[in-house]
Amino acid sequence: MNITFVVAMLDEAQPFIDNFGVREVPDFFSPLPCKLYRARLDAETELHVVLNGQQHGSDLVGCEPACVATQAAIQRLNPDLVINSGTCGGFRSKGADIARVYLGNGVMFHDRRVPGDDEWGTQALGNYDVWNGTGALAERLNLPVGKVTTGSSLDMQPCDLQIINENGGELKDMEGAAVAFVCSLYHVPILLVKSVTDLCDSSAETFEEFRRNLARASEELCRVNVRIIEELRVSGLGLRDNEV
Amino acid sequence: MNITFVVAMLDEAQPFIDNFGVREVPDFFSPLPCKLYRARLDAETELHVVLNGQQHGSDLVGCEPACVATQAAIQRLNPDLVINSGTCGGFRSKGADIARVYLGNGVMFHDRRVPGDDEWGTQALGNYDVWNGTGALAERLNLPVGKVTTGSSLDMQPCDLQIINENGGELKDMEGAAVAFVCSLYHVPILLVKSVTDLCDSSAETFEEFRRNLARASEELCRVNVRIIEELRVSGLGLRDNEV
Repeated sequence: MNITFVVAMLDEAQPFIDNFGVREVPDFFSPLPCKLYRARLDAETELHVVLNGQQHGSDLVGCEPACVATQAAIQRLNPDLVINSGTCGGFRSKGADIARVYLGNGVMFHDRRVPGDDEWGTQALGNYDVWNGTGALAERLNLPVGKVTTGSSLDMQPCDLQIINENGGELKDMEGAAVAFVCSLYHVPILLVKSVTDLCDSSAETFEEFRRNLARASEELCRVNVRIIEELRVSGLGLRDNEV
Repeated sequence: MNITFVVAMLDEAQPFIDNFGVREVPDFFSPLPCKLYRARLDAETELHVVLNGQQHGSDLVGCEPACVATQAAIQRLNPDLVINSGTCGGFRSKGADIARVYLGNGVMFHDRRVPGDDEWGTQALGNYDVWNGTGALAERLNLPVGKVTTGSSLDMQPCDLQIINENGGELKDMEGAAVAFVCSLYHVPILLVKSVTDLCDSSAETFEEFRRNLARASEELCRVNVRIIEELRVSGLGLRDNEV
């Protein structure tokens, strides 16, 4: 079983990397800036963590780097499951709280505005399939689920909120739908694990709230990811033997 | 000399495909939906046209499909020059008119809002390098130049316009910066060729204007691309012998 995490920021992945003792494989994706960390957990389970890497002096975030990293990861590592693990904004009105960790039971874009209820509008929203074991995993681990909604900006404009509300978005991130889009093209199942750093419907300034809560949200994210991997090792949830 | 066009929509590429008689190579990028058309123009020049392909029943447009197609094209075709050819919105106030074709002398994103004048803000805007032969080519062919500004939506919100104006954006498209971002990671030069289908500062409804002018803008795009290829075959403009 080959489990591959795709993560935007090193800060989001660091507790997880430390916990599992995964080791960097230098220049694996060269000339791409993406980074690979790898560990064999047991005879049956190989764990990869792929980071977007850096450009312009900062960790690459957002949809384009997520596409590049996911495509490279799938091509080079041939995973049975891609896990997009990261932080997100939540809505207090929908029950979110800081450092609460969700599994994504759906995923869409909220900032690709193309008019029409036809195939163009459908494509723009995305609404990609998530791994069909997501619901069972959430039940076994007693984790909340929510629909991930992705955009390339940290803020949320009125036009974003309108699309989010019209389409049931609950967890606002900057990568999920891009990772899911690439997975959809390669027919690789995707699991979304999202930890809340900020509340979109609070009065706090988003960037400040994000920075204040990043470490705590990433620690919780690590704790949940450890439980997820343990559950996958024990039960497989249909991932082994190409049961997906 | 290996010249590779990356184009979003078949309608944008069709006149060009017809003109050069490039032939489809079926399933070249499988399982990706991207399509490859190929022709050898002479002993020294190979021409590729890569389309994003379809999903959800429509041609894939926007930044994520552009990333996927560009990455696959560079990996599989190893081009000396990527040309992102397509349609765009222009500004009458900046001299644009329907079916006028520009070369991009810069390229940025206008819908990745991350606060700060630091490395995060720099990364969000992008501002990737374009091919250093762009200016000389524009002079030889007497073509106008302008800064391409990319977003994932057909419309333009006030927040988009603000970023466009603050950063000198002139040609509003949905793929250019994504193609340029991937090229920047692989250190492949990129030329942007953009034909105006709609005027962002007119009162016309964008989608209607786009559909009305798509055929004419794509014909003009083809005419300019033919001249570009002819000029590259004659002068090379530094592309041959790895002079870039």
